[in-house]
Amino acid sequence: MEKIVIRTTKRKQMVDITGQVSSIVQRSNVKTGLCFVFIPHTTCGITINENADPSVRDDLLFFLCELVPENSGYRHSEGNSDAHIQSSIVGQSVSIIVQDGNLALGVWQGIFLCEFDGPRTRSVWVQILDIRSS
Amino acid sequence: MEKIVIRTTKRKQMVDITGQVSSIVQRSNVKTGLCFVFIPHTTCGITINENADPSVRDDLLFFLCELVPENSGYRHSEGNSDAHIQSSIVGQSVSIIVQDGNLALGVWQGIFLCEFDGPRTRSVWVQILDIRSS
Amino acid sequence: MEKIVIRTTKRKQMVDITGQVSSIVQRSNVKTGLCFVFIPHTTCGITINENADPSVRDDLLFFLCELVPENSGYRHSEGNSDAHIQSSIVGQSVSIIVQDGNLALGVWQGIFLCEFDGPRTRSVWVQILDIRSS
Repeated sequence: MEKIVIRTTKRKQMVDITGQVSSIVQRSNVKTGLCFVFIPHTTCGITINENADPSVRDDLLFFLCELVPENSGYRHSEGNSDAHIQSSIVGQSVSIIVQDGNLALGVWQGIFLCEFDGPRTRSVWVQILDIRSS
Repeated sequence: MEKIVIRTTKRKQMVDITGQVSSIVQRSNVKTGLCFVFIPHTTCGITINENADPSVRDDLLFFLCELVPENSGYRHSEGNSDAHIQSSIVGQSVSIIVQDGNLALGVWQGIFLCEFDGPRTRSVWVQILDIRSS
Repeated sequence: MEKIVIRTTKRKQMVDITGQVSSIVQRSNVKTGLCFVFIPHTTCGITINENADPSVRDDLLFFLCELVPENSGYRHSEGNSDAHIQSSIVGQSVSIIVQDGNLALGVWQGIFLCEFDGPRTRSVWVQILDIRSS
């Protein structure tokens, strides 16, 4: 397992981690396989979306903040129930096919850590599965 | 990696791709493993849900359209922010266990490409991981 | 494939299945790999979230019930369209890295079966992928 450390700077933030995940895949020397990316946290998430126009990630984050308000009579007393809920909507992992030693992403796709309760230091765990030719 | 090409016909549409994914699994001759299905797009998604009564997929699609309106003061100027957001809610991949050379799905489960910004030609990428007996 | 059987007791309920998944991983003798957990149903889901304070899972479940009302003019006539929609929002599978023969979860993370149309008897299917050192 490889680990990436991300220092977020806002309460709600989308951080493009495509380059860091891609580097791990290239260093692994796995040519064909699957790259599994996991967030060991319960108040952030991970998703794949457009990384060309930054307004796409802004729209996604704004939508999730409107959908799940910060204060809404939650029972959990730490004041971050919105972040827990957003985490389960977006999900805690993504997987991407590895082909020719690289991440096989669509033209417009990037991998984003979704910070929902920052600023914090976040870990991203990456496990690569090698499909050896038989 | 195997590829499926789907031609969608509406802006919002659920397309049952269970049969096509199942065929790839059967042709692969993998008996035990995992079938990973990935959408290399940022304005569609993929999900597993009931494929018996078509009204289930209609209800899901209608709900997502109501939840994320097409026009809502988004910053992204291409007019498809709703589709990007719906993509991250539903997700861009599903995985299914392969057993006895077939997809191990529940009785009522089917795999659906969720078109959120069609009509378009969409690709679905399938990678099968073989678990050989040791 | 290993199977866990869960008997839910309410229509909407979060059931912590971390211990049962963890036991399967330990019994498998796989030291390094990936644990894939799949729900073969279309009216429940599975997610990872905090398992320390039970109010977190209550807040998540309450939010999903408010977001997707039980009755809302759905077309599907079985009266459980809300459950089908909640299933696709949360998702039908999670994957967790296996390291040193155990699930590699974050400190606060647990695995939850999300019952959206209980009480019912539910199955959880677990497939472990072994990454042997080459």
